[in-house]
Amino acid sequence: MQNLIQFQKTFELYLRNNEFVSAPKELYEPANYILALGGKRLRPAILMASHYLFNDQVENALPAAFAIEVFHNFSLVHDDIMDVAPLRRGKPTVHNKYGLNAGILSGDVMLIKAYESLLTTTSPRLLDVVRAFNQMAIQVCEGQQMDMNFETQPTVTIAEYLKMIELKTAVLVAAALEIGALIGGASKEDASALYEFGRNLGIAFQLQDDILDAYGDPKKFGKKSGGDIVQNKKTFLYLKALDTATKELAEELTGLFSKKSWDETEKIATVLKIFDQLDIKNLAEKKKEEYWLHSLKALESVNASAERRLILEQFANGLMNRDF
Amino acid sequence: MQNLIQFQKTFELYLRNNEFVSAPKELYEPANYILALGGKRLRPAILMASHYLFNDQVENALPAAFAIEVFHNFSLVHDDIMDVAPLRRGKPTVHNKYGLNAGILSGDVMLIKAYESLLTTTSPRLLDVVRAFNQMAIQVCEGQQMDMNFETQPTVTIAEYLKMIELKTAVLVAAALEIGALIGGASKEDASALYEFGRNLGIAFQLQDDILDAYGDPKKFGKKSGGDIVQNKKTFLYLKALDTATKELAEELTGLFSKKSWDETEKIATVLKIFDQLDIKNLAEKKKEEYWLHSLKALESVNASAERRLILEQFANGLMNRDF
Repeated sequence: MQNLIQFQKTFELYLRNNEFVSAPKELYEPANYILALGGKRLRPAILMASHYLFNDQVENALPAAFAIEVFHNFSLVHDDIMDVAPLRRGKPTVHNKYGLNAGILSGDVMLIKAYESLLTTTSPRLLDVVRAFNQMAIQVCEGQQMDMNFETQPTVTIAEYLKMIELKTAVLVAAALEIGALIGGASKEDASALYEFGRNLGIAFQLQDDILDAYGDPKKFGKKSGGDIVQNKKTFLYLKALDTATKELAEELTGLFSKKSWDETEKIATVLKIFDQLDIKNLAEKKKEEYWLHSLKALESVNASAERRLILEQFANGLMNRDF
Repeated sequence: MQNLIQFQKTFELYLRNNEFVSAPKELYEPANYILALGGKRLRPAILMASHYLFNDQVENALPAAFAIEVFHNFSLVHDDIMDVAPLRRGKPTVHNKYGLNAGILSGDVMLIKAYESLLTTTSPRLLDVVRAFNQMAIQVCEGQQMDMNFETQPTVTIAEYLKMIELKTAVLVAAALEIGALIGGASKEDASALYEFGRNLGIAFQLQDDILDAYGDPKKFGKKSGGDIVQNKKTFLYLKALDTATKELAEELTGLFSKKSWDETEKIATVLKIFDQLDIKNLAEKKKEEYWLHSLKALESVNASAERRLILEQFANGLMNRDF
């Protein structure tokens, strides 16, 4: 019997054995650098867990798991350029360490190498797999663009926000699960159910992230709380508050979120007071649980052994109960 | 009977009918912008001509032709960022018009949209087609990295230079021909022969470009001659000159190519005098013809009607006899 930690370990080993070795080294070194920075390898691990629902041959899923992880890291490299981020996992970002051009071109080749790895998979449904991967990749770009638009867009609806996090974050989780299932030999229905499991769970995860950023214990969450508030980020909490508030309170909140220099501690306290007044934490938790329950329901519908489904169920529970 | 101009026209119409219409518009508008800037659409047209060698149903080849053109334009968008180029076809480059982030992200989505279009092709050999496309895409990135490396690399061999132009320029032409052939139903041998036709022709084309930059009639060539010399570009002419020259003359040439400010007209004249002394134009023409003859030989070996092969033969002749 396998478990998620074993999948993570198996994948980590595969990743290390599949460092890019082609020339020119200036192109591939930044790719190896970002891939070696770590991370929990959750996306490849759940792809493998999804495959395991239908198939014991875990090695069949490894090239696709690699594709998902390389794609994810491609998107981090390009997003970090767009966000002018100096650090990633506490280390210099690729463009910061190797320069803008290396960030762009190494990112490009990582995206293409992801397809290359995927295309080595042995599966009668490889074309479906590649098409699923491709659709996901387009949606991630669309989500990133929406996120960038929100920074300058005067109003953002809650529906738009939920669409953005679905595209930017959730479809990658969903596609990892769907692709694992397809390669494992799942029926079309089961593969779709696993996609829905991942899509809903991914949205719930991002809502949880919004909540933790405002209310998490900074010691456990690993970053100062209130970061989103300081950066005027239009999170679910902020948009829900605008939606629920009286005209006057909404104007106060909009005013607070248009200031750039302000005492940080005071700003966070003022905004949280408004959030509390409107019961926002509770409303966000409810929304999160709605998606989470949808995800579990989708998982339950999958025709596979309950024992093997448990790996993904525990993964979903773990994500939701985290306070980090 | 079809001809290249008809393929170009058919493709142009298809391109116009397939503008990207998805949201968000900030992502797709730059893609539509660069695709509408024009160009001769030679890559999609020769893909169609290669398909036509084996198959009358020209519409089968259009999604792949679109993929090749969108990929080519993706590479232009990202290369223009890396080269800090303000203009493309006399109009502002994407990053210049829409900003760096739009250039990066729209380029990314174009690369992925190229795969999407390719994946709509109806062909029993679609996986071979996608793999051929993928290999080409990796090589184009590698070629671009080599080209960037050459700027700061103290010595570049002629073999390295030929490899760079093969990867950066020729494999895209080669893959277009191979993919058209595969979709058209060519044998493996014929598809490979068409790849070789394109690879050799692409290298010959780039050598011709190097020659025209130094010796072309500026009125016909459309840009001032000697541009490569002014920019200290390590072209075939320069590398061949270094290779052929005495130690003293080579040092003079290296010295000339390390200067940044210098009277342009005087620099061009001095360099051309050295080139002439070493018979460089002639040596470059010979190398070009070598590749060109190889390309024609590969084309001749293809099992298809001579009449249809003539379209590609005339294309090859036209490229080589150009003085523009």
